[in-house]
Amino acid sequence: MRISELASRSGVRVPTIKFYLREHLLPPGRLTSPTQAQYDTGHLARIRLVRALLTSGLSVAQARDVLARLDAPPDGVLNLMATTQQLLTSGAEPTDTFAAEELLRRWGWRVDPAYDGPVRQLARALQLAEDAGFPLESDVLDAYAAAMRTLAEVEIASIPDDSPAEALRYVVLGGVLMEPVLLAIRRLAEGDAASKRYGAEPAPE
Amino acid sequence: MRISELASRSGVRVPTIKFYLREHLLPPGRLTSPTQAQYDTGHLARIRLVRALLTSGLSVAQARDVLARLDAPPDGVLNLMATTQQLLTSGAEPTDTFAAEELLRRWGWRVDPAYDGPVRQLARALQLAEDAGFPLESDVLDAYAAAMRTLAEVEIASIPDDSPAEALRYVVLGGVLMEPVLLAIRRLAEGDAASKRYGAEPAPE
Repeated sequence: MRISELASRSGVRVPTIKFYLREHLLPPGRLTSPTQAQYDTGHLARIRLVRALLTSGLSVAQARDVLARLDAPPDGVLNLMATTQQLLTSGAEPTDTFAAEELLRRWGWRVDPAYDGPVRQLARALQLAEDAGFPLESDVLDAYAAAMRTLAEVEIASIPDDSPAEALRYVVLGGVLMEPVLLAIRRLAEGDAASKRYGAEPAPE
Repeated sequence: MRISELASRSGVRVPTIKFYLREHLLPPGRLTSPTQAQYDTGHLARIRLVRALLTSGLSVAQARDVLARLDAPPDGVLNLMATTQQLLTSGAEPTDTFAAEELLRRWGWRVDPAYDGPVRQLARALQLAEDAGFPLESDVLDAYAAAMRTLAEVEIASIPDDSPAEALRYVVLGGVLMEPVLLAIRRLAEGDAASKRYGAEPAPE
């Protein structure tokens, strides 16, 4: 198909598709003349994926790295998870991670050097909350840890055993795309819990 | 204190403090001469708060709105929560919310019109995942909902009953500052769960 059909089928405008091509987020089409190229359904799927990654808040460079990992995955799910997590947290500033590591020890979680990106991210987030005059209490943090650990087990258990390609896709995309879902669900859960504690009036019609 | 002392005590540079002043994120100091102003510890606390809000990913306009709500809170915790959630999700594009509303009904959660921002955010996040070829399975979503509902109860229960000012601070800052903490904990929980399922070798020294 031509680039115009790619645009109408994906819902992504032609100039944006050209941007994806320039940024090597999308592989080039097959040239049929010096100024025309043909694209296939692989391009269509890739465009939807690129749009989802960028809309989820990844930078162009991060999206390119995630795609490169999908195209040429490292060996094994564990390695892939660790490199993906590092990538997503590569912007985390260096910071004192002592308090964060103490938490991990208290929870009995394995502290793998390959996860120093997320550890720095946690340390930084805790520091920010404290700086804002909102130090987090241990019982709330422990409740967060217990809930996330249960979820992680559900997620890890649903990684397919029989298809490495599918497992990789699951790990990379699940890491990126589930975050906005989780945050939205958290907000709605708080609305529900608050309306129960504070005994809201029925919503006006 | 002078602006230079404010900078050294807060760790925020003078040009950044001037930017906060210009953007009305920080109230002006008390003028002691046409070109000099004095600041107090209230300014210091506010600078730390502004930095935390901006570092958490809020835009300047969103931070200004959050601060305005803290300074002149609406009546009641429920109203404050709803307006804060609306504010944080005001960028969510209009989208078909049918699937998201179906989920809320299945979970038995109150769907308050005041929460249409988070509902749109959930709908959009689900759509993005599906567009990327990664539709979310019901059992994973149900597990997320159950975990977030439990956490919300812990959080709502820890909102102080006796101090409205403290309750408001808790709701606004907790909403913004806990998100990065939660995401970091989720990543670490996944690393731990994965290393247990896939039987990681001990990390190399």
